[in-house]
This record gives sequence, structure tokens and C-alpha cells, in this order.
Amino acid sequence: MDEQKIVSELVEKNETKIILIVLDGLGGLPVKDEKSELEFSKTPNLDELARESATGLHIPVFPGISPGSGPGHLSIFGYDPIKWEIGRGLLEALGIGLNITDRDIAIRTNYATVKEENGRIVVVDRRAGRIPTEENRRLTKKITERIKEIDGVQIIMEPAMEYRSALILRFKDKVNEKMAMIKETDPQVTHEEVIPPEPLTTDAKRVSEILKKFLREVKEILKGEKANYLLLRGYSTVPNIPKFPEVYKLKAGCIATYPMYKGLSKLVGMEIIPVSGFSIEEEFKVLKEVYKDFDFIYFHIKKTDSYGEDGNFEKKIHIIEEFDNILPEILSLGFDVVAITGDHSTPSKMKSHSFHPVPLLIHSPYVFGRLSNRFTERECLKGELGIIKGVNLMPLLLAHARRLKKYGA
Amino acid sequence: MDEQKIVSELVEKNETKIILIVLDGLGGLPVKDEKSELEFSKTPNLDELARESATGLHIPVFPGISPGSGPGHLSIFGYDPIKWEIGRGLLEALGIGLNITDRDIAIRTNYATVKEENGRIVVVDRRAGRIPTEENRRLTKKITERIKEIDGVQIIMEPAMEYRSALILRFKDKVNEKMAMIKETDPQVTHEEVIPPEPLTTDAKRVSEILKKFLREVKEILKGEKANYLLLRGYSTVPNIPKFPEVYKLKAGCIATYPMYKGLSKLVGMEIIPVSGFSIEEEFKVLKEVYKDFDFIYFHIKKTDSYGEDGNFEKKIHIIEEFDNILPEILSLGFDVVAITGDHSTPSKMKSHSFHPVPLLIHSPYVFGRLSNRFTERECLKGELGIIKGVNLMPLLLAHARRLKKYGA
Repeated sequence: MDEQKIVSELVEKNETKIILIVLDGLGGLPVKDEKSELEFSKTPNLDELARESATGLHIPVFPGISPGSGPGHLSIFGYDPIKWEIGRGLLEALGIGLNITDRDIAIRTNYATVKEENGRIVVVDRRAGRIPTEENRRLTKKITERIKEIDGVQIIMEPAMEYRSALILRFKDKVNEKMAMIKETDPQVTHEEVIPPEPLTTDAKRVSEILKKFLREVKEILKGEKANYLLLRGYSTVPNIPKFPEVYKLKAGCIATYPMYKGLSKLVGMEIIPVSGFSIEEEFKVLKEVYKDFDFIYFHIKKTDSYGEDGNFEKKIHIIEEFDNILPEILSLGFDVVAITGDHSTPSKMKSHSFHPVPLLIHSPYVFGRLSNRFTERECLKGELGIIKGVNLMPLLLAHARRLKKYGA
Repeated sequence: MDEQKIVSELVEKNETKIILIVLDGLGGLPVKDEKSELEFSKTPNLDELARESATGLHIPVFPGISPGSGPGHLSIFGYDPIKWEIGRGLLEALGIGLNITDRDIAIRTNYATVKEENGRIVVVDRRAGRIPTEENRRLTKKITERIKEIDGVQIIMEPAMEYRSALILRFKDKVNEKMAMIKETDPQVTHEEVIPPEPLTTDAKRVSEILKKFLREVKEILKGEKANYLLLRGYSTVPNIPKFPEVYKLKAGCIATYPMYKGLSKLVGMEIIPVSGFSIEEEFKVLKEVYKDFDFIYFHIKKTDSYGEDGNFEKKIHIIEEFDNILPEILSLGFDVVAITGDHSTPSKMKSHSFHPVPLLIHSPYVFGRLSNRFTERECLKGELGIIKGVNLMPLLLAHARRLKKYGA
């Protein structure tokens, strides 16, 4: 039996409040003086908290796997990231901030350059020379002004970065995942013919017809442009995922500044609390106003990951120290359980998400503590949590909040 | 494939002897001077043993889960506690010391107060004002004197504590678990009608009829009493669990003082060795007499859990120290493998079973040792076993006893 299901059956109500603070891409690797970002940072408040907390590290998927933001977050929200997949099209749409419903098929689209050879559409450049986002906006507007719907299905398209965009087919009724089983059209190499979006299931036939019509119209609209075609991939529907407030009996709120994290949180049933601005300061202002109304707050800080991805060791440290500064104010709100971790590691040395276990602390009245002297990767290794799976986090938070009954008699 | 099955296929005979000492609810939490029960205890013998042993901690079910005694013990006996469930009725019956066979359906019954309204039986008090055990004994005697069997099925009923009792339907032939799939009759709230014990499978129809007749008679017998009805729950049969001596090729004996642990051990096929009295001293006397006749001894000490549940930090320490006192004598018997752990943690701070990993040591000639300076939660974290699952313990004990062949060529 599914662990999340067992946990769900053990959940009982309580008045306790939980905050899960996610510093995106928190974990790092030694760079300067053989120290990691966390080790180099001056974090007196985090360190003091770590000394009084249960510490450890978590592995979001399994050893060796570098998770994307989707699996990383699903894991710490208690959803097995191998069981629950968030389609690429859906993630792209969430990342742009599109509102996705259960009547939608979300598709990731790439602007490409093609040429016609004896009636065959052949790829010349799969990214149309990485057209700038500005150009993407102009072309997408051109398409959406001309195509509003096809065969009674609403067509929504939004530009993302550079050559990427999101396409939504919005039906009148609920869709199913079999309707989204369609061949991806990108041949993956240049000088090859574009693959038609053929259906892979009977349910997908109608969708395939709509996409073929869409692509014919797009070809007409983009005639003469450098980016004169769209490649389609990552067809996805909203997964029928158990909702966080029902599974855990927690009224859950999301404080985040980036669309994708808000989208993911909404997908699992959290309430999105609006934040004006992008700073930790502004997120905290919102937290202070709303925390009393929720049992569980997911508090997301994005920039640790962004600077990790940029390979900017100093700026990642700066964000960690900025967070450390505001930590006492967060603690003063009196949450019963405080957890601090990341959704994955993003060492600035690697300029990418990585597979390294992510530092984790849990503060509650039911910990040992005094095992880690600081909140760093190497100090967390000494902690009482050991190295756990990311999906183990939610049951632990519920247990520390005394929201889980005994299992069996 | 099931790990226990793999282990079972690798088992080979040997002359080595294993003792598994379970201090029930062993693990704690810091209370006094930031020290846990184990940390506060003076345990020179345990500490010396820990220094020469493989140390670590085990998690009986999975992180965050506080196990009952059933799942906790199944786990350290090598049975996946998620796969093998011990029904509540069965556990209640085992707890009273009833002898349960594969022809039995065990049911937990609660004395309740009901009233009749237009032919409906409505619950007034689900626990009949928590009647004292004395009263329970009187009422149960009254019932069992009048009801001996129904439709050829023997009716056995035994009082437990306060308003709780155990009911056994003993059939002439082996029963199956589908026969026990019957609606629980407790509406869970007062002023609601009692739920009839309707069958949930075809196999359960006959059982349901018997229970309906039983309840009609009980209502007559208890007329005029404060506790004038019985609520039925936790219908269960003996699980078809692989037997310990066959799975592990170990002649296994149980030394325990409380009925439930003897019952659980019997359920998995251990031999129950009678102990007169309840002290560790008396358990040890028995051990000294019988240990030569067994390959494996399960030695259970109850009071660490009882005092943990009472929130009695000092008395829990006292039991730990009492055990430490007797430990050299146990060691002098010359077991090849000595394991000391608990079935779960019961921090006196929480007055309940908890989810915290349980300290564990394994002493054998095949350990590193010198990693933990004492036998405490925090010192065990430094040990060579790490934090393992409870079900990992039995294969480790067999391996240390050189009773497992190589896996694969």
C-alpha cells in the first residue's frame, strides 16, 4: 500500500501550525576555501536553530537523480515523484502562470525554422536560431489573433522564454490523459522531416485532428518569418492527484513569487497567497498577515536556485544570508513545527540542479538537537534524521505537529 | 520479491545462539538537563557493550509513523508491518491471554449505554461511562453463562480493562478473512443509531446472522444495566503468517510477562516459555534455565514502555538501570549474537508511542564497534548500522550468527 495513503488514514486534526520553508536549490558544493555556499555563509540564526533542531538531509527522488522543480517539490509535499508525473507541457504552462483546468491539454511548443521539400516539411533549425523573447511575443500574438478556436475547442497560447511557448487546448468537458497521448512532432535532428502529431490512442484522435489543423494554419500565418513553424511536445493533462488539504487535513497556503511554484502548489490544492514583489522581505510581510489563517504554510525562496544555476557563488551566499537575517522574525510568529530545506541542490560549481542530498532541519518540541553545529551539508550529516527520502518529510512534519494517530494497535 | 522470502531461502543451519532483548518503548526524548531517559540513566554495562557492538537505530514502519505494539514487534521479527496486519480484535484477545486458533473470529467489544426510540437502538454513551473492570467482569460472566453457542458456533467472551472485552466466535472448521468482513457497529458518535453488523462479503453472511442473534440475546440479558449493549469492532482472523521457526530455521522461544507479547510471539510460531511473576529478575531466572534449548530467544521487558506512557521519566530510568544491572549475567550465558533494542520509542515527554528511531545494538564477533560511547539515541547515531528499517534487523541477526548463505554466485 501507498505510504501517502497510510499517512492519510492516520491523520487527525490538531491546532498546531507548520511552516515549510523551501530555499530552492539550497544545497551546494565546496568552491571557496573548500567550503560550500552554506558553509561560507554567515548564518548565526540558522545555525542556532540547527543546534536546537532535528537535522539531516533528504534525497528528493533517489540517489544519483537530479530532480526538476516538479519532482523536487512533489517529493517534499509527500507525493512520490516517480508515481506522480507532471507533464512538460503542464509545467511550462504553470511556469508562465497560466491557469490550467481539468478541461485542458497543455503542450510545450518550440518555434522552429522549416523548409518545404517536395511537400515534406523539413527542419532547418529546431529553435529558429533561439529567437529572442520579444520576437516570440510578436509571433505568438500574430497566431492568437488569428486562431481563437478549432472545432469548438478554445486555443490559448502564451510566450515563454526565447523560442519556447505554451499551447493550451481547452475543451468544453473534462479531458482524460489518454486524449493527450500523441506523437511529439520534433524529429530531434535537423534535416529530418517534422513528425505529424498522430494519435497513439483512440481517445486522442480528435485532439490529433485539431493539432493538424492548428499546424496548417500556423504554417500559413508564419509564412516568411524566420521562425516559420511550431514543434509540439510534452502533451499533458492535469494529473488526478490527491489534494493536499484532503490528504493531510491541513488548510495549506503557498507564499511564492514565481509562477511555476504557485502553479504546482495550486495543482496539489494549496491556496495561493498573493505577494506583490519578489523579495524575501515582501514574502515575509505577507506571511505575517496571513499565517494565522492556515495550518500549513509553504514558503518558497527562489533566488538560491537562480544564482546556483548562474554559477554565482557569492550571490547565492548573499541570498542565504538575507534569509538568515529575516529568520528570527519568522520564528517569532510561533509556528509549532518549522522545517527548512530545499527542493533539490543547485551547486554553483555545477551551474545546474544536482543529485546531492539536500540539508534539512525540523524544529519542534519533539527533537533531540545538539548534533549539528551549523546548518550546512556536512553538519546536517551528523543529525538525528539521517539521510531520508524527500517523501518522508511530510509524515515527519505531521508527526512533529502531533497530527498522526498511532499505526495499528 | 519479498525480502523475508529471499532471506528464508538463504538460511542455513548453525549452532549459534541469538538473543533479541526488547525493552518496550525504549527510545525517549530529552527532558531533564536536555537529556533523554537513556542519556540520564547510569548504564555502565550497556555502555561498555555498546562500545564493542554495532550500533544504530531502527525505524519500525517508516519515518513519521508511531507504531502500535503489533506493527512494532512484527517489524523487528522480520515481518513487513504494512503487509502483515494484526486485527484489533485479535490483538485485544491476545492481550487478554486468550488462546486464538485458525477457527476463530476475534472481535473487540465495548460495553455501551443505549436507549430504544421507536424500535431504533440509539447510543447514549459509547463507553457506558467507562464502567470499572469489576463491573465488566460481572456483566461478561452474566452473558457467558447464558450464551454458550449460537448456530453451532462456540461463543467465548473475556473481559479486558474497563468497558473493553474480547469476543471469539469459534467455528468447527478453519475460517477465512472474508468471513470477518462485517460492518463495525459503533456509530462513533452519541445520539446515533447503532449500526447492524451487516456482512460485507458473501462469506460473512453466516457470521453476520450469528452476531445479530448474539446482540439480540445480549440486549435481553443486559436489560436494566447501565451498560446495556455491546458495540462490535475490529473483526479479525489469525493472519496466515509464515512461521518464524520455518522462515528462519530457528527454534525460537519467547520470554515475556504480558499476554499481548506472548500472543504475538505465539502467532508467529515461537514457543512461549512460562514466567512466574513480572520482574526482569524472574524473566532472567527462566532464561538461565531454558536458553540452551533454543536457537533464538526473544526476551521482552515491558515496563520501559509503561512508564513512558505514564510520562514517568524517573521510573523509566529506573527500569533501564535495573536491566543494566542484570545485563552482565545475561551476557555470561554466552550467546553468539546479542541484540538490544525496542519495538518503538515511548518518550515520557510525549506519554505515548512515538515515531522516533529506536536505539539498537548488535554484539557479535563480526562488528567494528568503538563508534558509540554509550547506548543512547544520540550515541547510536554515530554507529555502523546507521538508521535502518525494523525489518532489516532479523536478516542482520542471522548474518551475524553466520546463518545466511551467500546471495547469488
